[in-house]
Amino acid sequence: MPKSTPAYDSLEATWSRLYRLSHLQSIANWDQAANMPPKGNEARAAALAEVAAIIHETTTAPALRATLGSAAQESLSDTQRANLREMEREWRAANALPRALVERRQMATSRCEYAWRRQRPANDWAGFLPHLKEVVTVAREEAQRLADQSGVSRYEALMDRYEPGLRRERVDRIFGEIRAWLPGLVARARERQSFERVIEPAGPFPLERQRLLCEQAMRLLGFDFEGGRLDVSAHPFCGGVPEDVRMTTRFLEADFLPSLMGTIHETGHARYEQNLPREHLGQPLACARSMALHESQSLSFEMQLGGHPGFVNRLAPLVQQVFGSQPALDPQNLHRLLTRVKPGPIRVDADEVSYPAHIILRYEIECPLIEGEIEAEDLPALWDAKMQELLGLDTRGDYANGPMQDVHWPEGLFGYFPCYSLGAIYAAQWFAAMRRERPDLDQRIGAGQLGPVFDWLREKIWSQGSRWTTDELTLRASGEALNPAHYKAHLEARYLS
Amino acid sequence: MPKSTPAYDSLEATWSRLYRLSHLQSIANWDQAANMPPKGNEARAAALAEVAAIIHETTTAPALRATLGSAAQESLSDTQRANLREMEREWRAANALPRALVERRQMATSRCEYAWRRQRPANDWAGFLPHLKEVVTVAREEAQRLADQSGVSRYEALMDRYEPGLRRERVDRIFGEIRAWLPGLVARARERQSFERVIEPAGPFPLERQRLLCEQAMRLLGFDFEGGRLDVSAHPFCGGVPEDVRMTTRFLEADFLPSLMGTIHETGHARYEQNLPREHLGQPLACARSMALHESQSLSFEMQLGGHPGFVNRLAPLVQQVFGSQPALDPQNLHRLLTRVKPGPIRVDADEVSYPAHIILRYEIECPLIEGEIEAEDLPALWDAKMQELLGLDTRGDYANGPMQDVHWPEGLFGYFPCYSLGAIYAAQWFAAMRRERPDLDQRIGAGQLGPVFDWLREKIWSQGSRWTTDELTLRASGEALNPAHYKAHLEARYLS
Repeated sequence: MPKSTPAYDSLEATWSRLYRLSHLQSIANWDQAANMPPKGNEARAAALAEVAAIIHETTTAPALRATLGSAAQESLSDTQRANLREMEREWRAANALPRALVERRQMATSRCEYAWRRQRPANDWAGFLPHLKEVVTVAREEAQRLADQSGVSRYEALMDRYEPGLRRERVDRIFGEIRAWLPGLVARARERQSFERVIEPAGPFPLERQRLLCEQAMRLLGFDFEGGRLDVSAHPFCGGVPEDVRMTTRFLEADFLPSLMGTIHETGHARYEQNLPREHLGQPLACARSMALHESQSLSFEMQLGGHPGFVNRLAPLVQQVFGSQPALDPQNLHRLLTRVKPGPIRVDADEVSYPAHIILRYEIECPLIEGEIEAEDLPALWDAKMQELLGLDTRGDYANGPMQDVHWPEGLFGYFPCYSLGAIYAAQWFAAMRRERPDLDQRIGAGQLGPVFDWLREKIWSQGSRWTTDELTLRASGEALNPAHYKAHLEARYLS
Repeated sequence: MPKSTPAYDSLEATWSRLYRLSHLQSIANWDQAANMPPKGNEARAAALAEVAAIIHETTTAPALRATLGSAAQESLSDTQRANLREMEREWRAANALPRALVERRQMATSRCEYAWRRQRPANDWAGFLPHLKEVVTVAREEAQRLADQSGVSRYEALMDRYEPGLRRERVDRIFGEIRAWLPGLVARARERQSFERVIEPAGPFPLERQRLLCEQAMRLLGFDFEGGRLDVSAHPFCGGVPEDVRMTTRFLEADFLPSLMGTIHETGHARYEQNLPREHLGQPLACARSMALHESQSLSFEMQLGGHPGFVNRLAPLVQQVFGSQPALDPQNLHRLLTRVKPGPIRVDADEVSYPAHIILRYEIECPLIEGEIEAEDLPALWDAKMQELLGLDTRGDYANGPMQDVHWPEGLFGYFPCYSLGAIYAAQWFAAMRRERPDLDQRIGAGQLGPVFDWLREKIWSQGSRWTTDELTLRASGEALNPAHYKAHLEARYLS
């Protein structure tokens, strides 16, 4: 006989309701990016605000505190217990911030982002600064309230939203290690590559052909088109809902690699979503574990597979079939194109090796900024110094491609950046674990057999949802705690051997 | 100093909220038809049910009755008074039906529609009948409750949802008149046309070219692409929200006329929505007046303009530009193609002249069905008799193209059909009024100047929203009550002169 758990059951019903409402948010957000004509914007914003208000009202209903308390006393299964833990986490986050602060944040970030869209192209740091300062003020207040509740530092409280349980000590240690070997690795990789001959592909590459290639790559990577689709938006993302994943990309006629590699990246996110535990969909338990783990999936696809010579062997014939044969599209040259190390000022254009330098720089700036150790005025000087130090680049005076390059700060998304590089580190750790279990993994990939990769990720990561904490999941999946040595070994193997 | 109207103000806030929620419904519904992959269906249905439940909860909140009562006592402007009248109408409709009945209806229509999708292609009337009977049972109960509240007959209570205030007496009278002259008009038109030589266009017509043509026709007809778009769905419709209208069409490679004329039809709906009074958007006052008036707009575009020789002169060069020149695409031949009278069993394929016969048939069957004078079993025999009588067609045994041809009955949409022909009658009346005001209207249209048509419709219909009842609006717009003589005159002028 099943145990009676009335409080827990009522929580499940509440979260199912929240899930259905967030479905409408996700689809409306995707539509806004992929379809909506300009005059629809105001009404859409009002509609999204309305549903956000209902969600906020539901998660801050006073009765919920008592129900969560009662459920904790009920006789729950392990699964229910894990689900309750995630509910409590969401409940704490929703209840930590007063409505007025949430609205101030919304105002400040909307204004700042709007200003940024015009000021970035004009390289107008002086005009941007007051907007950014207002966002920082609100973010600090938000961080302080979250920190008061959970007993961590301000910046940790913000990171916690994206990667629950992540602390500065760990990020400091890992990024500190990487910082020590990265500039040397970049230099050595560049030196080796200076002897390689790389042929640039000759375009144009018609957009409809690029779309075809992207869809073929998605099929190769196991994307389920019965439960999702690919569209175009200015900023590629993976949205929608697990039952109906909406990926987007964008096409440049002059170069097919950005759309192809962007699509491969988003397909990693998409497969995570498409393979979350179906039986629990609608409950927090069935959500993706964290943003670092999400990035570990996109980077498993884009970096671990995308730069793998065996995978590129499989990809090259698809590319040639779509665009016709040319020397630049031979597997070896394509692989060189995909693994070329060339530091530049822009994070989103960075190669696999110099990428972590951008993230370390962001972390070393936004962490003290939120903790109150520096001010927004200090950003350009710090930025320039760290770019010089980490990548040997002179960025002075170029604010547009400096501290104004990303939308994260205008949007107040402090604490997110570390997830990108943690994701790359986790991805390397997953592939190291796969190789231990299957010593023939690289031959299999080289033979076009991606099944073992997908099976491993499905069993160890995707199907686990949020059942475990990130640390528990890491241990269960790979047999050890987060270990950046695999990441270093991966980069050395690919770029120095 | 503005008057204090606290009750009315709170109603406006409630209806703004309902408007925002219905925005999400509209976009999610459009997405379901235009984009959604099959595996997204279940989650989408659950999300839509959730928002429908919130809307139902809001409109049936017990406090609303008192607020509506208090608002009626406040000192309101004419505009506010009209808005309150529409709020009361929506409130009565939402509160007339107990939740259990709404759910039974949902179950019965879902089941019936699902069965119909398989049974129609199989011509399986016997299998379909029990499902339809269940839908009829629920529809009668629904109609009875609505009728009890408003003191009209059952069928009138259902028509009232689509055309507020419409009564059987008027429909009987108008359809009775049409019935008297229609078969003769069809016969005479066909005899005249039997001497015309009509050239069939030679395809194929590539879908991308058809899309281009449709978009050009939409531009010609004044569709605002900054506030809407055209996509593809299995069943064309005009959805979205006034700020962001989502039209759909479908393409057949063998024939471009269905997509072109369907698009012209939907553009009429779209311009009504795009030109509703912006200053009141979000309030019931700013909604389209009724479904008969909505159809009067689509039919003003599709029939009044679409079959107008002057308009066809303007359209033909666009068609030739897109598909290249061929004799069939000359203006005169194109006009003949667009006005060919050829009775057939299918309503949606019917020409302008035989179309009302289909509607009269539906009305003469569904009205007694809902009033309880006949049963679902009686439909095929009645159908066959009326098809013979009205259009001289033998439809015996062909259930798929007989009483099973439309989705309306499986979906329980009894009372809607009259709106189609009333819309055609209103459209003729609008154009008669325009010609009285501008005797050069037809020359203007012939010279490609559609401005006078749009200006008249914008001023008299679109911008009026729901400020007036349909009868008031008709009188204000055209100087007389609904008068089917204009419709007859229009058909005679186009097909017999």
